[in-house]
Amino acid sequence: MKTSVFVGASADGFIARPDGSFDFLSAAGDEPHGFEEFFATVDALLMGRKTFEVVLPMEQWFYGDKPVFVYTSSELAGKPEGSVVAPVSGTPSEVFRSLEKRGFEHVYVDGAMTVQSFLNEGLIDHITVSLIPVLIGEGISLFGKVPNDIRLELAHFKEYPSGMVQITYDVTR
Amino acid sequence: MKTSVFVGASADGFIARPDGSFDFLSAAGDEPHGFEEFFATVDALLMGRKTFEVVLPMEQWFYGDKPVFVYTSSELAGKPEGSVVAPVSGTPSEVFRSLEKRGFEHVYVDGAMTVQSFLNEGLIDHITVSLIPVLIGEGISLFGKVPNDIRLELAHFKEYPSGMVQITYDVTR
Repeated sequence: MKTSVFVGASADGFIARPDGSFDFLSAAGDEPHGFEEFFATVDALLMGRKTFEVVLPMEQWFYGDKPVFVYTSSELAGKPEGSVVAPVSGTPSEVFRSLEKRGFEHVYVDGAMTVQSFLNEGLIDHITVSLIPVLIGEGISLFGKVPNDIRLELAHFKEYPSGMVQITYDVTR
Repeated sequence: MKTSVFVGASADGFIARPDGSFDFLSAAGDEPHGFEEFFATVDALLMGRKTFEVVLPMEQWFYGDKPVFVYTSSELAGKPEGSVVAPVSGTPSEVFRSLEKRGFEHVYVDGAMTVQSFLNEGLIDHITVSLIPVLIGEGISLFGKVPNDIRLELAHFKEYPSGMVQITYDVTR
């Protein structure tokens, strides 16, 4: 099973402001930036509870009827009509194996804490970061502490008219 | 007078480890990455005291006989033979004006704290960051808190065989 991260961040590496808002991502406007193409290649999502609680009340549910697993030991606050949402818990390895056993082939991992815990266990294969050309100074970092340096390999690189730079790294295991 | 930053950083945005070391930058090997071409365009350097104290004991003095101004209110610990080094102090604006008065046209600003204080006063024009494909988890960030969002414009980007990605932003004033 393959795992990928696909995320927008400020040029100084924040995926959200300290209060969780991410208005600054809209500096890139509505330009297509490959999300739909990426999303078409995944067959399940795994996201942290905090990320779920951010997307849950939004008017639009972005994930259609693709299974969304929320990494949490609590009950879910609800789920949008027509969505397929279920909680999962355990260590990152346990969650990974459980999703693999269900036959998923490509899982989209989202949410800073979930990404960090999976990355630190060597359970992330690809990271696509779309850097928005703005410095916001503080907020929630995509990356966190690592037990050891994590080597990356540049897989893909693209610039967009808004000044957004999209970098895809493969994680060297 | 124009000011530019030219710096290497890990993919998670650190220019040095917590102890100031920057061994991870060597993951890019010795490949030429435009530093010499950039350096040829500057007629003076401004660096923070900490950065000066890192480069001072190195075997090689990188800056030839170009004037190096060290942003500090203390005495300098020394200077390499043949180098042109002088302390400067005051607010970022005062230092900027003082360098401008001396007739410099393009100043290379280096050191996280100095870059941040100049950036926050709107005194940086161009930022070139060479992202090394490695996550180190913690260290000294190139960027820091900002009083307001700082908009950037993508001016240039380039990928290198090592997987290094070099991005040049113009700072929108």
